[in-house]
Amino acid sequence: VPPRFYVPDLDPRAERVELPEDEAEHLARVLRLGAGAEIEIFDGRGGLWCAEVVQAGKRRVIVRPGPRARAAAESRVATTLVMSVLKSDKMDYVVRDVVMLGVAEIQPLVTARSETGMAALSRGNRIARWQRIAVSSAKQCGRAVVPPVHEAQTLDAFLSRPMNGPRLMFVEPSVSIEPSVSMEGGGVSPRRTDLVHDVPSPNAADLIIGPEGGWTVHEVAFAVDAGVKLVSLGARTLRADAVPLVALTFLLTVWGELK
Amino acid sequence: VPPRFYVPDLDPRAERVELPEDEAEHLARVLRLGAGAEIEIFDGRGGLWCAEVVQAGKRRVIVRPGPRARAAAESRVATTLVMSVLKSDKMDYVVRDVVMLGVAEIQPLVTARSETGMAALSRGNRIARWQRIAVSSAKQCGRAVVPPVHEAQTLDAFLSRPMNGPRLMFVEPSVSIEPSVSMEGGGVSPRRTDLVHDVPSPNAADLIIGPEGGWTVHEVAFAVDAGVKLVSLGARTLRADAVPLVALTFLLTVWGELK
Repeated sequence: VPPRFYVPDLDPRAERVELPEDEAEHLARVLRLGAGAEIEIFDGRGGLWCAEVVQAGKRRVIVRPGPRARAAAESRVATTLVMSVLKSDKMDYVVRDVVMLGVAEIQPLVTARSETGMAALSRGNRIARWQRIAVSSAKQCGRAVVPPVHEAQTLDAFLSRPMNGPRLMFVEPSVSIEPSVSMEGGGVSPRRTDLVHDVPSPNAADLIIGPEGGWTVHEVAFAVDAGVKLVSLGARTLRADAVPLVALTFLLTVWGELK
Repeated sequence: VPPRFYVPDLDPRAERVELPEDEAEHLARVLRLGAGAEIEIFDGRGGLWCAEVVQAGKRRVIVRPGPRARAAAESRVATTLVMSVLKSDKMDYVVRDVVMLGVAEIQPLVTARSETGMAALSRGNRIARWQRIAVSSAKQCGRAVVPPVHEAQTLDAFLSRPMNGPRLMFVEPSVSIEPSVSMEGGGVSPRRTDLVHDVPSPNAADLIIGPEGGWTVHEVAFAVDAGVKLVSLGARTLRADAVPLVALTFLLTVWGELK
């Protein structure tokens, strides 16, 4: 497989295309490719083309796009991981793993029990970092789509957006909502796989996953009142940073996408 | 939930039970529990009991077993992860995650492309380390079963053992075996979910997963000739250390165990 480079604003009809600086450095300095080398270039939106290196300087690399190439198939269900940010570098691994498994978008959340707030996320340039990880993971697994990593939101702000498919909130097996807590006054308990079987292969779905400390009772009640469905995965307590991969694999299997 | 301690050779009918030294230290020094504290003790084979601390010294802790407690349900399919050892600490995370998801046993393998050999495993006391991680992961996720981590084997030695259920080898989507390579002379291609649907909820199953560099063609052919079935997961290339969690989640979902 020829090495693959990401050109976000790629025009495949152009005669000459300049690689972004970091991709150019990778091609020339790390891989030490020169004029004539055969590579692939992709636009992060599903487009993948063969290309030939025309000129390779230290920071400036020009390539000539060739015929369209075949990228790894994308899932028919456009899944968005809506994930409360985790401590330290755990979120890095989550981003890497869910991109590899085929998520379409990543929406970081700051929730009641998140260990990191909006200000710290912004100071640490975390969104830009996760976006770079998404690019690198897409390259590694052969996807021509780079899932966008959006700016962090609160749960309220996220839930007020229009739905484009079922919203599934993953909760501990023990969670249940007392009638007095739910704003609509109805008791709600998390339902399990039968819930998900009620949602056969939608076009899009949001997977909403909490932080290390879990959701507060009020967050769960608020989400249920906003039309979110609760799902739990098995009888055991999973670590927060393993839940995205397990939840996504579970849904992709149920929806017949993992084949 | 009361803190839980592992007593491998526990006799729940005894009046007084001494905790193993590392568990005793954890109780007395880390958690600073004293006489009268209520805890749980488990034998790693599914037995879980309430207990009361009778005497708590720095290295010697005596407890009195009480009534049986209810542990997290175990999967009806006893899965063995048969895993080619991975580099550095990646195997640690694999052990932690698959124990959490409910694996019954772990069989490390040294294969053609393993980065670590038998001697290095032995020098590094890696098996003992993974066994300790399995204990700690079982505690965290509420299982009363500690999956045994066996001594490493070669693929040949493993395949020569009697089967106790279907053996599923996870391969890249691109793998196929030419007729000339298979010893029986028949061409074989990896089949996907339909293969697994052929195996509805067995009592036991082996998940055989390769190292970072994958399987050699001869290993795949040898396994197929020994009755192993090939499975691939989706069209994308997954990282070796994510495959165990994805493969196990996939099978548990297909078998209706993840609920």
